[in-house]
Formats: sequence, structure tokens, C-alpha cells
Amino acid sequence: MHDIRFAVLGTGGIGRRTLEYATVKDGLTPVAACDRHGVAIDHEGLDVSELLAATASQTTDDGSSTAGTTSVTHSREGSGVAASSQAERTETPIDDIIAAADRIDAVVIAVPNLEHDFIPRIADRFAAAGYKGVLVDVLKRSRVIGMLEDRRDMFVDTGITFICGAGATPGLLTGAAALAAQSFVDIEAVDIWWGVGLKSGYEDNRGTVREDIAHLDGYDLETARQLSDEEIARVIDDHDGRLEFTDMEHADDVLLERAGICDAEDVTVGGILDVRSDEKPTTTTVSVTGTTFDGERGTNTFQLDDATSMEANVNGPALGYLKAGVRRNRNGEYGVFGPAALLPEF
Amino acid sequence: MHDIRFAVLGTGGIGRRTLEYATVKDGLTPVAACDRHGVAIDHEGLDVSELLAATASQTTDDGSSTAGTTSVTHSREGSGVAASSQAERTETPIDDIIAAADRIDAVVIAVPNLEHDFIPRIADRFAAAGYKGVLVDVLKRSRVIGMLEDRRDMFVDTGITFICGAGATPGLLTGAAALAAQSFVDIEAVDIWWGVGLKSGYEDNRGTVREDIAHLDGYDLETARQLSDEEIARVIDDHDGRLEFTDMEHADDVLLERAGICDAEDVTVGGILDVRSDEKPTTTTVSVTGTTFDGERGTNTFQLDDATSMEANVNGPALGYLKAGVRRNRNGEYGVFGPAALLPEF
Repeated sequence: MHDIRFAVLGTGGIGRRTLEYATVKDGLTPVAACDRHGVAIDHEGLDVSELLAATASQTTDDGSSTAGTTSVTHSREGSGVAASSQAERTETPIDDIIAAADRIDAVVIAVPNLEHDFIPRIADRFAAAGYKGVLVDVLKRSRVIGMLEDRRDMFVDTGITFICGAGATPGLLTGAAALAAQSFVDIEAVDIWWGVGLKSGYEDNRGTVREDIAHLDGYDLETARQLSDEEIARVIDDHDGRLEFTDMEHADDVLLERAGICDAEDVTVGGILDVRSDEKPTTTTVSVTGTTFDGERGTNTFQLDDATSMEANVNGPALGYLKAGVRRNRNGEYGVFGPAALLPEF
Repeated sequence: MHDIRFAVLGTGGIGRRTLEYATVKDGLTPVAACDRHGVAIDHEGLDVSELLAATASQTTDDGSSTAGTTSVTHSREGSGVAASSQAERTETPIDDIIAAADRIDAVVIAVPNLEHDFIPRIADRFAAAGYKGVLVDVLKRSRVIGMLEDRRDMFVDTGITFICGAGATPGLLTGAAALAAQSFVDIEAVDIWWGVGLKSGYEDNRGTVREDIAHLDGYDLETARQLSDEEIARVIDDHDGRLEFTDMEHADDVLLERAGICDAEDVTVGGILDVRSDEKPTTTTVSVTGTTFDGERGTNTFQLDDATSMEANVNGPALGYLKAGVRRNRNGEYGVFGPAALLPEF
């Protein structure tokens, strides 16, 4: 495949790691990045090291300076991407990237999706501008998939291949569930259980933590969105830094159903997030239980080593699914595709 | 996707199970099957139950009659497919299917490949006849992949999408290894370890057992091919029914390398075959060890439940990969594709 030129919308934890990860993957050239107030575009390829250094704060929670603990300045000091020598300050970052998009093969949408339709509305803007290419997101929530599916005809007419839910879960683990299901003709249950240790990565992933809190008893997306940083800290304190989630609304369910693997209601997602340790509080495991064509019942499992970080498990798959999306796009396959649909159509 | 009409060459264990499995998968219609002396073609769809019943012997090794233990008659009594009311006796079964292939989307090549180039030469015959469609095999040996790759231009010119190594291993487990590798930027080792309990399935899978014996110390493909049934029984006796294999020549290695996952030499395949028990002698496990982009070393694992049979793990994936191949073929993608290459191009 020819080299892929891609853009990243958002330079929070996922956006930054996507840029970093691309420097160690073959065939991927990041050519654009933006946050709310700045945009950097270089069709020859961004200098990722400079961009990451310029957008990183050297200030940690306790005021000390460490190399391993970085946070994104745009949410703190209003500089962000604009602090890079490759960037310009702008009030219209996404429009700026859309204006350059005829030379961009794929766009990773790594913005928080606290409003359900935020990512779908970004897609609308790319479609309105006639963008032909790939859009990738790492969204989590089931109901957004339907909003994207409603836009299928628009994507097809425009020439957009939208790859949704392409992170760890949904994403890597959805794909693993789809593969594990191949021993069976009838699937009884898909159980996805994740562990994340997010001490040093906490600052970079505040948006993700906020989204997760919406899944706790007593919270929803609206209340989580309105929490102040202090209130979030209090929620975390109340749980001794360890948040356990059950029956999360995670898009693995609808994505597996759409791929013909099982019914959405047979999929359960839960896990434990520990923001005070980098050790995982539990081992990330996908269990698929079903019946074989010869009538045996069994459970296949897929486990991630506790040493693999959330960032490693989100960004590797995201870029892999991006490449799969570009392949589809270049073959004229447009519409909405989930991670399991990009596997062989079992 | 439109309904897929497919043919099966060979009605040994894998061919028979492919036909049976297709009756419980959506969108697949078996329209042709053959063995050495017979061919059945019905473009409206074969009656699989009749065909399987007609080709199954009711005689087991001890002469008793049981429903669960069937063997293929063609190797015993010379009737085989020709015993079916849907079939005709023929001396040119493959040519007969080639002659009807303009209405066949995909062909599963489920013949023993004791001569390295047997399957490649079958592909030559389909290409020579101008077949446009999908060929699928479940071959195991690494060196055959190169022979197929040598024919790539021929496949492309003809319009053939050749899906190779699409069973359990290579196949399902190759795909699992490719997914498990996504946490890492550098892969150190892929270890595939399988367990097969083949007591009641032994008669149906003599060809597979013979191929496996070629991997034992002191044997190679040539000597294994020349063993009489009695000599094979003696080899099995000498090992108390339990054959353990290490460092097998299994195509997972070259298929993972071709998909860009790791070097072929980093892949090891081994396992235990127990022909005197239906219980698996060891749990089938894929272990992928590597280093993440953030410098951590770990091992991700994929395990199949001991209750899932070899047949379930070969034939489900084979038909899934077949569907993926038809999708590619209809999109004009021709050439040679392994199971990991059909995953997102990580």
C-alpha cells in the first residue's frame, strides 16, 4: 500500500499517543494535528517530537517537573498545539484541516465525545466539504454507532469510509471476540472485562476518566460532563482511586451484532480503573462462550498481559484499523465499518 | 453480500465437515463436491444430508455399526461420492467441476497435500481454464505458500483470489496471533501450541494424521506418504496413541511474516495429538510476546476451550475466510492472501 497521510483531531492522551505511535509504524505519515486553538499542517510530515514537546506541560499535579508525567497544556494554559513552531493559532481548527483534506487519506477523531453527536457532527462537516477518505474514531458508546449508521448514505455518496470504535474496547477486544467466536455456531455470551492502571497516564487521559465516570451508579453523561475537576477528584477519593464498572454501555455490543457475531444483548462489558497505580487492577480478558457445530459448549479466551498499557492497546489497533480503512476506501468501499466488520466476514 | 455458491474438492474429514458446517452458516450454498471417482453438481444447492450419508461407511474398525463413527467409503470400497444419488461416476472429477465453475464463487480445496505441489497444480488447472473466483485451502506447510506466491501474477491475470492456510493453524490461530500482536511494536516470539483429541474423528482424518507423522523425528513427507495403514498404526502404538510435535513446519510462520506481524523465524508451532481419546491432551494456546511502544514487555494469550473440536476450529474459520475471499474477489482483489492478511493490515 502507498504511504498513508493522516491527521489527528485532538491532542489529548489518545491524539498524542496516536502521533507518537505512528512514528514507529511503517507507512504512516502524520501531516496534520489540531486542538481547540491551534492547527499544524505539513504535507511532507509533521515533526512529531517537536509537536509533542511543545504541547506538553512540564507541570505535574504537585508542581514538580518530570519527563514521564505530561499533560496537555490547552486545557490548562490555552496554548496547546499553537505552542508548536509548526502550528498556527486558529479559531477554526477543524475547518482548517478540512480545507487541506484533499491531500489527507485518513483522519483520526480523538476528541472527547461527551455530547453523543459531537463526533457524528464532525463527520457531517467533512462530508459537507466533499471529503473523500477515511474517518476513524475510538468512541465507546453504543448509541453513537446508530447515529453514524444513519449517515451511511451520506458517507457512501461522498466517498467516506468511517471506521468506528477502533481503539482497545471497542476495537482490539471486539476483534478478538469476533475471532474467538469462530469455534462456535451459536454464541451464548461475550464477556469483556478490562483493567487499566492510570497513575502516570492520568493527566493525559482526564477526558477518558470523565467518560468512564458517566457509567458509575448515580451518574450519567450529562452529570459527568458537568462535574468540575474537583468533583471528579472527590468521586475518585470516594472510591479510593479504584473505580469498578459493570454493564457499561460500550459499543462492542452493537458492533458485534452488526458483524453478525452475536446479539448485542449477549455482550457485557465491565472493568476496573485504578488511577493511583500503574499496575493493572485486573487482567483484561475477553471470554466468548458458545456451542460448536458438533454440539459442544465451551469458552474461548483472549488475555492481554498486565504489562501492556491502555495506550498501547488503544493506539496500535487504532492505526491498524486506519490502514484497513484506507484499503477499503481505495477500493471504493464507503460507509460505516466497525472493528469486527473489518475482520474476515465470519 | 449475495449468496455464495461453493464447491468442495475432496470428501475426507475436512471436506465433509465443510459441507456440514455450511448448512448452519448463513449465505453459503454448497453446489458441487467431488472425490477421486465421483462428482456431484447442483447449482440449486446440494442435498448435504444425502451426500454425507451416502458417502459415509457404516462400518467401523471393529466391524460394528455406530452413528458417531463414520469413515469415507472411497478409500475403502471405491464408491464415495459416486454412491450419492446426486452424483455421477467420473475419471475427471476436478475437470468436471472446472467445467461448471463459471457458476461457482469459491472452491474449497480439501485434498491431502502429501506432494508439496499438489494444491498449487490444482490451482494451475483452474487458472488455465480462466476461472474467476476464490480458491481456499487449509494447507499447513510453509513451503507451499512460496509455490502459491510464485503463481501470483497468474492469479491476478486470471482473476483468482487464493486464500491459503485458512483452517485452525494456520488460520484461526494465525489470525489470533496477528490480533494479539497489536499491543506491541516489536514482536519477540509467537508460540502456537495445539491439542487435538481424535479418537472418534480418527477414521475421518487419516490424511491429516499421516501429514502430522511427517513432522515426527525420523520421518519426512516422503516416508510418511509411503507408510501403509498398518505401519501408521504401529507408529501410533509406539507412542501409546499420543504424538507430540515440536518445531513443526507450519505455514503460520511465513503467513505472519507476509502480513508484516513478525519474522517467520520468531514463530514456533507444536502440539499433541491423541488418537485414543476425544479429550484434548493439552489446551490450544497462542502466546505472543513483544515490547509495547512505551517499552514494556509482555505476553498476550488466546486459548481455545478444550471442548472445541479440531473440526469446529478448522471449518468455522475456513468458511469465514472463504467469505472474506469472495468479498475481495468481487472487489477485484486478486492474488494470494493468508489469514492474517485478511485481518486489518496492522
